[in-house]
Amino acid sequence: MPRFFVENASDEEIILTGENARHIGRSLRMRVGESLTVCCDGTDYECEITAFSDSEVFCKALSIHPSVGEPQTALTLFQAMPKGDKAELIVQKAVELGAYEVCFVMTERCISRPDEKSFKKRLERLNKIALEAAKQCGRGRVPKVSGIISLGELAGRLPEFDKALMCYEKGGISLSAAGLLQGQTVALLIGSEGGFEQREADGFEAAGGALIGLGSRILRCETAPLAAISIIMHLAGEM
Amino acid sequence: MPRFFVENASDEEIILTGENARHIGRSLRMRVGESLTVCCDGTDYECEITAFSDSEVFCKALSIHPSVGEPQTALTLFQAMPKGDKAELIVQKAVELGAYEVCFVMTERCISRPDEKSFKKRLERLNKIALEAAKQCGRGRVPKVSGIISLGELAGRLPEFDKALMCYEKGGISLSAAGLLQGQTVALLIGSEGGFEQREADGFEAAGGALIGLGSRILRCETAPLAAISIIMHLAGEM
Repeated sequence: MPRFFVENASDEEIILTGENARHIGRSLRMRVGESLTVCCDGTDYECEITAFSDSEVFCKALSIHPSVGEPQTALTLFQAMPKGDKAELIVQKAVELGAYEVCFVMTERCISRPDEKSFKKRLERLNKIALEAAKQCGRGRVPKVSGIISLGELAGRLPEFDKALMCYEKGGISLSAAGLLQGQTVALLIGSEGGFEQREADGFEAAGGALIGLGSRILRCETAPLAAISIIMHLAGEM
Repeated sequence: MPRFFVENASDEEIILTGENARHIGRSLRMRVGESLTVCCDGTDYECEITAFSDSEVFCKALSIHPSVGEPQTALTLFQAMPKGDKAELIVQKAVELGAYEVCFVMTERCISRPDEKSFKKRLERLNKIALEAAKQCGRGRVPKVSGIISLGELAGRLPEFDKALMCYEKGGISLSAAGLLQGQTVALLIGSEGGFEQREADGFEAAGGALIGLGSRILRCETAPLAAISIIMHLAGEM
């Protein structure tokens, strides 16, 4: 069933506007009486369309329940800025796999170093990709994409999380030894093409994080986050 | 270190020819005395270049050991034919994550239905992608890409495997309940964009396979194999 995210929803009548209304009316050509799901902050409203105006779609909620696709574990992916269009692939897949948020990070070995202005524009596109992925896979909220922060800023944020894990190409503990439990907040740091400097890994550990190894194969910087999120979500009982 | 796959290797002198020799001489512009890894059927030969001829590179093996990047668990991905260029992405990532082999399968809901001739040409490209991925991630062998087989043919092959698992969008057991152990042979079947018909799932079970659920989010057909392979390889102690 088509899925639309809104900022506010009352229990009775829900009015869809803007891009949502255009999509329902013009792209999907939906009619009065047809069904759709409106999602607001982790709650799904199974609705029937009751009326259209020029720019609005009026819906009636028939049933209301927590979004089944929304994990209880809140994993924030901190991804060192990759080259080319890998950021787009990473955001799409991270959202599907259940990431709570994606934040890009600048590390010493990042080859791609976009300036603030050009990245701001790209962030719009990346957030749109997150929205589309959240609709498609049935998430209960739209993960926010942000950045670019420094590793120092990341270190300052680590105390917010129950677990802070960094995938390090020189190895670390196995994810199954990280003590992951459902409902935790998890920070996951993944490197760019060149990986990390030893002192970046040391700094992460000093800030309270743990180094993780993902086995003996060298994973590309867009493969490592997908593998790590999949395994973490499995270990946390979300997948 | 650059990595090259060969069909045969003696313990003393290894001669690289063809594409390998061209790559070493023309693209990488390597010289006598430089180091490279020659890989033959799960064994790594750490070599030094001793001489060049017009079309050959002569190497001396300095040390010989099993390829650390080659998993002991042999997972064959049976992937229902996807649309567009997703097959290329799936092959690349499956090889990185440790798949032993990738075989494309035709199912009822496949939208992409290439004829034998056009797919034969595409298989060449897909096998080249597997080779490049195997070099890049440090595999001990190059996974073979094949297909397209029918679900009936797949059912006939299932008895070859210790475990036969099918990711079914209507759910099944968790991968952690599949009893995965290191060193097993595993068949993993993943659907195309439209998923599977109920009777395809029933047929897989009747042939001795188990249905697997990957959680409550709807994964795209190129995301599901990467998530499932990551989790299986983790559970089998390979990642």
